[in-house]
Amino acid sequence: MRFDEAYSGKVFIMSRPTYEDADAILYGMPMDWTVSFRPGSRFGPNRIREASLGLEEYSPYLDRHLEEAAYFDAGDIPLPFGNAQRSLDMIQDYIEQILAKGKFPLGLGGEHLVSWPIIQAIYHQYPDLAVIHIDAHADLREEYEGEALSHSTPIRKVCEKIGPKNVYSFGIRSGDRDEFRYAKESGMHMSTFEVAAPLKEILPSLAGRPVYVTIDIDVLDPAFAPGTGTAEAGGISSKELLEAIHLIARSDLQVVGADLVEVAPNYDPAEQTAIAASKFVREMLLGWVKPSK
Amino acid sequence: MRFDEAYSGKVFIMSRPTYEDADAILYGMPMDWTVSFRPGSRFGPNRIREASLGLEEYSPYLDRHLEEAAYFDAGDIPLPFGNAQRSLDMIQDYIEQILAKGKFPLGLGGEHLVSWPIIQAIYHQYPDLAVIHIDAHADLREEYEGEALSHSTPIRKVCEKIGPKNVYSFGIRSGDRDEFRYAKESGMHMSTFEVAAPLKEILPSLAGRPVYVTIDIDVLDPAFAPGTGTAEAGGISSKELLEAIHLIARSDLQVVGADLVEVAPNYDPAEQTAIAASKFVREMLLGWVKPSK
Amino acid sequence: MRFDEAYSGKVFIMSRPTYEDADAILYGMPMDWTVSFRPGSRFGPNRIREASLGLEEYSPYLDRHLEEAAYFDAGDIPLPFGNAQRSLDMIQDYIEQILAKGKFPLGLGGEHLVSWPIIQAIYHQYPDLAVIHIDAHADLREEYEGEALSHSTPIRKVCEKIGPKNVYSFGIRSGDRDEFRYAKESGMHMSTFEVAAPLKEILPSLAGRPVYVTIDIDVLDPAFAPGTGTAEAGGISSKELLEAIHLIARSDLQVVGADLVEVAPNYDPAEQTAIAASKFVREMLLGWVKPSK
Amino acid sequence: MRFDEAYSGKVFIMSRPTYEDADAILYGMPMDWTVSFRPGSRFGPNRIREASLGLEEYSPYLDRHLEEAAYFDAGDIPLPFGNAQRSLDMIQDYIEQILAKGKFPLGLGGEHLVSWPIIQAIYHQYPDLAVIHIDAHADLREEYEGEALSHSTPIRKVCEKIGPKNVYSFGIRSGDRDEFRYAKESGMHMSTFEVAAPLKEILPSLAGRPVYVTIDIDVLDPAFAPGTGTAEAGGISSKELLEAIHLIARSDLQVVGADLVEVAPNYDPAEQTAIAASKFVREMLLGWVKPSK
Amino acid sequence: MRFDEAYSGKVFIMSRPTYEDADAILYGMPMDWTVSFRPGSRFGPNRIREASLGLEEYSPYLDRHLEEAAYFDAGDIPLPFGNAQRSLDMIQDYIEQILAKGKFPLGLGGEHLVSWPIIQAIYHQYPDLAVIHIDAHADLREEYEGEALSHSTPIRKVCEKIGPKNVYSFGIRSGDRDEFRYAKESGMHMSTFEVAAPLKEILPSLAGRPVYVTIDIDVLDPAFAPGTGTAEAGGISSKELLEAIHLIARSDLQVVGADLVEVAPNYDPAEQTAIAASKFVREMLLGWVKPSK
Amino acid sequence: MRFDEAYSGKVFIMSRPTYEDADAILYGMPMDWTVSFRPGSRFGPNRIREASLGLEEYSPYLDRHLEEAAYFDAGDIPLPFGNAQRSLDMIQDYIEQILAKGKFPLGLGGEHLVSWPIIQAIYHQYPDLAVIHIDAHADLREEYEGEALSHSTPIRKVCEKIGPKNVYSFGIRSGDRDEFRYAKESGMHMSTFEVAAPLKEILPSLAGRPVYVTIDIDVLDPAFAPGTGTAEAGGISSKELLEAIHLIARSDLQVVGADLVEVAPNYDPAEQTAIAASKFVREMLLGWVKPSK
Repeated sequence: MRFDEAYSGKVFIMSRPTYEDADAILYGMPMDWTVSFRPGSRFGPNRIREASLGLEEYSPYLDRHLEEAAYFDAGDIPLPFGNAQRSLDMIQDYIEQILAKGKFPLGLGGEHLVSWPIIQAIYHQYPDLAVIHIDAHADLREEYEGEALSHSTPIRKVCEKIGPKNVYSFGIRSGDRDEFRYAKESGMHMSTFEVAAPLKEILPSLAGRPVYVTIDIDVLDPAFAPGTGTAEAGGISSKELLEAIHLIARSDLQVVGADLVEVAPNYDPAEQTAIAASKFVREMLLGWVKPSK
Repeated sequence: MRFDEAYSGKVFIMSRPTYEDADAILYGMPMDWTVSFRPGSRFGPNRIREASLGLEEYSPYLDRHLEEAAYFDAGDIPLPFGNAQRSLDMIQDYIEQILAKGKFPLGLGGEHLVSWPIIQAIYHQYPDLAVIHIDAHADLREEYEGEALSHSTPIRKVCEKIGPKNVYSFGIRSGDRDEFRYAKESGMHMSTFEVAAPLKEILPSLAGRPVYVTIDIDVLDPAFAPGTGTAEAGGISSKELLEAIHLIARSDLQVVGADLVEVAPNYDPAEQTAIAASKFVREMLLGWVKPSK
Repeated sequence: MRFDEAYSGKVFIMSRPTYEDADAILYGMPMDWTVSFRPGSRFGPNRIREASLGLEEYSPYLDRHLEEAAYFDAGDIPLPFGNAQRSLDMIQDYIEQILAKGKFPLGLGGEHLVSWPIIQAIYHQYPDLAVIHIDAHADLREEYEGEALSHSTPIRKVCEKIGPKNVYSFGIRSGDRDEFRYAKESGMHMSTFEVAAPLKEILPSLAGRPVYVTIDIDVLDPAFAPGTGTAEAGGISSKELLEAIHLIARSDLQVVGADLVEVAPNYDPAEQTAIAASKFVREMLLGWVKPSK
Repeated sequence: MRFDEAYSGKVFIMSRPTYEDADAILYGMPMDWTVSFRPGSRFGPNRIREASLGLEEYSPYLDRHLEEAAYFDAGDIPLPFGNAQRSLDMIQDYIEQILAKGKFPLGLGGEHLVSWPIIQAIYHQYPDLAVIHIDAHADLREEYEGEALSHSTPIRKVCEKIGPKNVYSFGIRSGDRDEFRYAKESGMHMSTFEVAAPLKEILPSLAGRPVYVTIDIDVLDPAFAPGTGTAEAGGISSKELLEAIHLIARSDLQVVGADLVEVAPNYDPAEQTAIAASKFVREMLLGWVKPSK
Repeated sequence: MRFDEAYSGKVFIMSRPTYEDADAILYGMPMDWTVSFRPGSRFGPNRIREASLGLEEYSPYLDRHLEEAAYFDAGDIPLPFGNAQRSLDMIQDYIEQILAKGKFPLGLGGEHLVSWPIIQAIYHQYPDLAVIHIDAHADLREEYEGEALSHSTPIRKVCEKIGPKNVYSFGIRSGDRDEFRYAKESGMHMSTFEVAAPLKEILPSLAGRPVYVTIDIDVLDPAFAPGTGTAEAGGISSKELLEAIHLIARSDLQVVGADLVEVAPNYDPAEQTAIAASKFVREMLLGWVKPSK
Repeated sequence: MRFDEAYSGKVFIMSRPTYEDADAILYGMPMDWTVSFRPGSRFGPNRIREASLGLEEYSPYLDRHLEEAAYFDAGDIPLPFGNAQRSLDMIQDYIEQILAKGKFPLGLGGEHLVSWPIIQAIYHQYPDLAVIHIDAHADLREEYEGEALSHSTPIRKVCEKIGPKNVYSFGIRSGDRDEFRYAKESGMHMSTFEVAAPLKEILPSLAGRPVYVTIDIDVLDPAFAPGTGTAEAGGISSKELLEAIHLIARSDLQVVGADLVEVAPNYDPAEQTAIAASKFVREMLLGWVKPSK
């Protein structure tokens, strides 16, 4: 090893050395400036990478090894602190470049609002896009405290952009009355409280379609993911979230991008949230990214 | 806003401004002086209030909004440190005043012994009272270390006061041999280990009766509620406790008062216990308190 | 005690029952929306109040008892999340009302930007105002990341408003080059690294003048105050900060208002920051508020 | 009580005063020197003992009391820091002495490699030994980073010693590809992801056989046991592990020894891992140790 | 090593195997039942022992090695939970036995009230006893909340027993007005805020006298000892407390017993309080216990 | 920004984009395999980088800006877990390459043993090398538990390699008797307990000489650096360590390399150790690295 070749900063285990080698790009979005209750998800991507050092490279769930998944950990997008609009623009621009190279974007949040520019970019490329949204919160507000750019609004925006009937939410257990009314009346799909069982029923109807999957770590009960900004009791277990990831992996969807958001390590001195998140990322890489050849 | 109208201290979200406006009184009992292993529940009420700031005001479980529940957060009863008997007297006196005004008392502990004076006060008003007790511990000791006023004795005292056959315990997974023998021989009901399934079976038999419900947060597994004094592995999930609250809400019981006790925030740096407790309180307010008109 | 008289929420110990009884108003400003690195000071005021329960009511430093200080804990100003300008307007309006009644405003932050509207309000009343600023950070930026309303800018704004020569900073050990250049060239006073010794020298020159004192808890070394957003190694001890408070108490200044900001309890599982802050508040109340008669 | 009779150091509750009185010997192995990711299990035995102070002495699961189980807590074996081979030799020698006296060895780890010398000692005495292995990790590596003495290798060594068909692993959810291939091809039994259900099926086939049971606390999901070195999301609950212990207790196996390993208290500020572990130890003592009478 | 000789529970490093071998007896008093604000010191002795594993056996301050100090760690006195009077009786009885054998009692608390029965026992043997008291709190109350047996009263009781002029308090920075008035008027010595400097002045006047030294860990600033029940900002550093211990070691006092109390490990996830306390104990053993021959 | 240019992993703030641009190379050595008491320093370098995000780029102590210091953060050397000898060989080889390019090596540990291969490499280039060693521990053992490659031995090895009279230790407060005897008899310099004052006296005698400086973070009191493996009470403050760094910066030494070791973030939930360490690194870069032209 020559010293100029040293491992530069912490990356997710088994990252390929350059983006050209990769079918998927793993990238961080260290943004939490619209978060209302407990910010801190800006540190999520770095801690997920750190925790990945404790992972096995092989998944007995999928019988696949990270060597079979060609991905490049590109680090964090250097988002401008406190400037939500410019941050979103940078994210959208960044995703468009990934898509232009035919690669799979796998994003690490940061707050949930980051999914909004990503999905806009993906939708430009896939006009028949469906979105699978796994979360404790409906995120269907039109605005939050007078602000349309909020971590409570991204799925509403997505509904308005790609049509509510193309949006499928699972595990929702929190929101205001208007959000649940919108869910019922708009034509979108919303499964409350549960994830794996309703997902199993819905997946066949999405066969063949391009799908973006966004997972908010707070769909887990705080017992499994205390390190998040808006922990909400009554959630699912890590086992059920793994099952959901594997259901999608074994389905006939064409997953075209994904993200995992809202890991806020400061609230979790035992680091279990980052440890769990790094395993979910491994399974997403192994199950959802199709080798280019 | 005039400065003399500022929000005075932390209260549970959506508290009505005065007790006259309210159908229910939310009050804290910051007492933990008889606790044997790890005290600290005296800080429970304040942290449950603080965590309530992170709650939605709407419940998708019950399709109700906190605006529909008229309650006043009266703060903590100023209990005299270390004096168990006088603390209990103050609590009983306090509850009697709430009942005299026809309001629903919803108490936050503090240690479990606080339920004893509350139930005495309620029983005076409702001689056909039944008690539903959801807890990891039987709390059926006659005394603990020679002391009859202990957090291990309240349910025994309740049995002796209102008759064992009017007491229904659920989720019990800890106690000494005599407590379990008493449970078997006295005629009370005790379901071990499980809560929702046996509760579902029992509820119809209580239809129409006035019922007081006391919940010890340690019925949850420590994974879901690490912040409690006598954490006991092998408990139920937050999901199951929510289900139990909703089963009672949808039953034909006449709930006439309730408490949630033993939240001890110091043992839980991730604050998940207070976060979960504040959600349980919201569901109890929405599901158990009947509007006065 | 009647139940409608119960202690309403947590307040700082020995608060008078109403604001009319009080010479000083203690109030919280739970705002942290412009904070760049680690937000969380919005929870500061509540935890300082909670920690006050562990305080003695008597100060052996000043030989005074909290009974001798008539203050009312008015709770937190209900600031609108994420809206910096409107929050600042509300604070300024609030302080003007306190001043109109001839009372002493003692504020608990929240981020340091909250001092800016307070000082504007005070300056309207006291045109010959001087400001004593005790902090690790110069807070002299003109803007931060393009934003003039930032926790890095309040002292610059104060300098521009009341004239740099009326601003006295102590303990500064962090800032950018322009801030230190401004400090040198503008005519303001800045003591780097130390607090008590230079303060002792400066105080006689301020004799008789109306002075506002703003203390950022991060002037302490992180050993003494780990619970703050921008902890900076190399700070002073709690002992030195107490000495500074007592130097001011014993000086001939006319202290006309004060604040203590940037306590962010989430970063401090041992709660030592809130515990220390509650003691500083006690000493400020005892040493700086002059009885009205 | 005379002062020379004082309670010497912390022991597991209800330990008999001398080893002669005991049917089982409880002993600690404070070794973690081959651990790759997060060491710290050397402190496990002491904290499990400390947490035992919070346990009831009676088990409502088994309807037995610790008075009915005669065990002596012998403290920790004084293993030489950093010397894996000599530590293993000391453990093996220690177990042989316990077996020579006809007593049941119940060990507390420490890292999982400690099970290897124990099982060697047991196998000498019981040539038809079967091993039940409950763990998140296969521990079937031939070596780890070039080192055969590693916490990733003990079950492979056991397979090679006593024959793979006598080894039964449950709950496995992590390992490299070769480990899972070995599990399939060698003739050993491996149940992935689940514990109680497959154990129930297997137990009848082991009726009457001498069996050693080794439990790695990380078979639990990190929600239930954050305090362990290689936490792995997607595990079982404390309830399921209790069920597994009780299934074995009620089976026709002849349990001849057992251990519980990998409790690393430093990663768990809420201490829930040690609290849960102490309960598992109580149930193992009550359910698995047969009175010598 | 034979298995019946294994190390029985955790003891302070280098403890002699039996009390007969020892000049000093190290013993724990796991009592915290009169503590008002944050209990937990009952776990102090065990954690101080655990932390002693990280200590060197040699002190460069005193140029002595623990081999030169013959002490026996006798474990914790099994105090009856919640029964203050009986606990105190047991402690007094225990100390009398130690003194009867001519050994030096070195106690680990537990709350500060434990010093009261110890000093009574010592005073019976040494009627010209002086007491050195190093603490943040005066502990001079006559009663606390109506209770004379409180952790706030022991030094008052000592004053009344042995005469105020024989009591020397150092480092006091908290108490009520009456306590400081008593300190002034009674004739006792009280140095506020500082320890080493005033101790240096006082020590010569105590030359040759039998002296008991009681140290409350909260004399340290919470930065140095966050793990204590009534943390009080503005304290001394670990360095100053070490200096005080060494001043006494090098003086002409006849130290006849000592204690270190109020370590409450639950409030200190970094474990620095127990780590520091174990070092103070080492220095007390090396500096204060005179070899018997 | 193009996506292939994204910021790759976390690096210390203001790192130059390539090593060619740099006068100094910042590199991590994530090794802790010989650590006896509490391992975990392998995570130190990553957390120091993460904490650097909270730093100002300008130092008011030195009136310099990080733009004036040309350094490249090369990431962590990928050391082979558990293999001490091979890890040391890789480090030595790595440093030799840095020196061959005429650059200044600034290393982040990892355990203190990593300094041994670095100093060997430096000594080859600078035969008149002196070493300044700032630490709580003497690190002068010949072996530890029979192992010559231990974190307790590096300074002894350095003494034997470059001659004891060229080694200057400061702040030492822990070690065994032989280490202190060696310090006295060998001719090396050792200042116990203090750093800045004795350093000030020694520095003139080293004027003009090439000097390597190794700092163990545990020279700080645990109050200032709880996150380290062998925390030792009675240490210096962050302020004194900063003073020492600045004394060296302003001296006439030719600093030719440096390291900061033993940051173990797991023991410090408040993250103050990494926060302080990142500031020390900034001051070392600004004060010790001479611009190449």
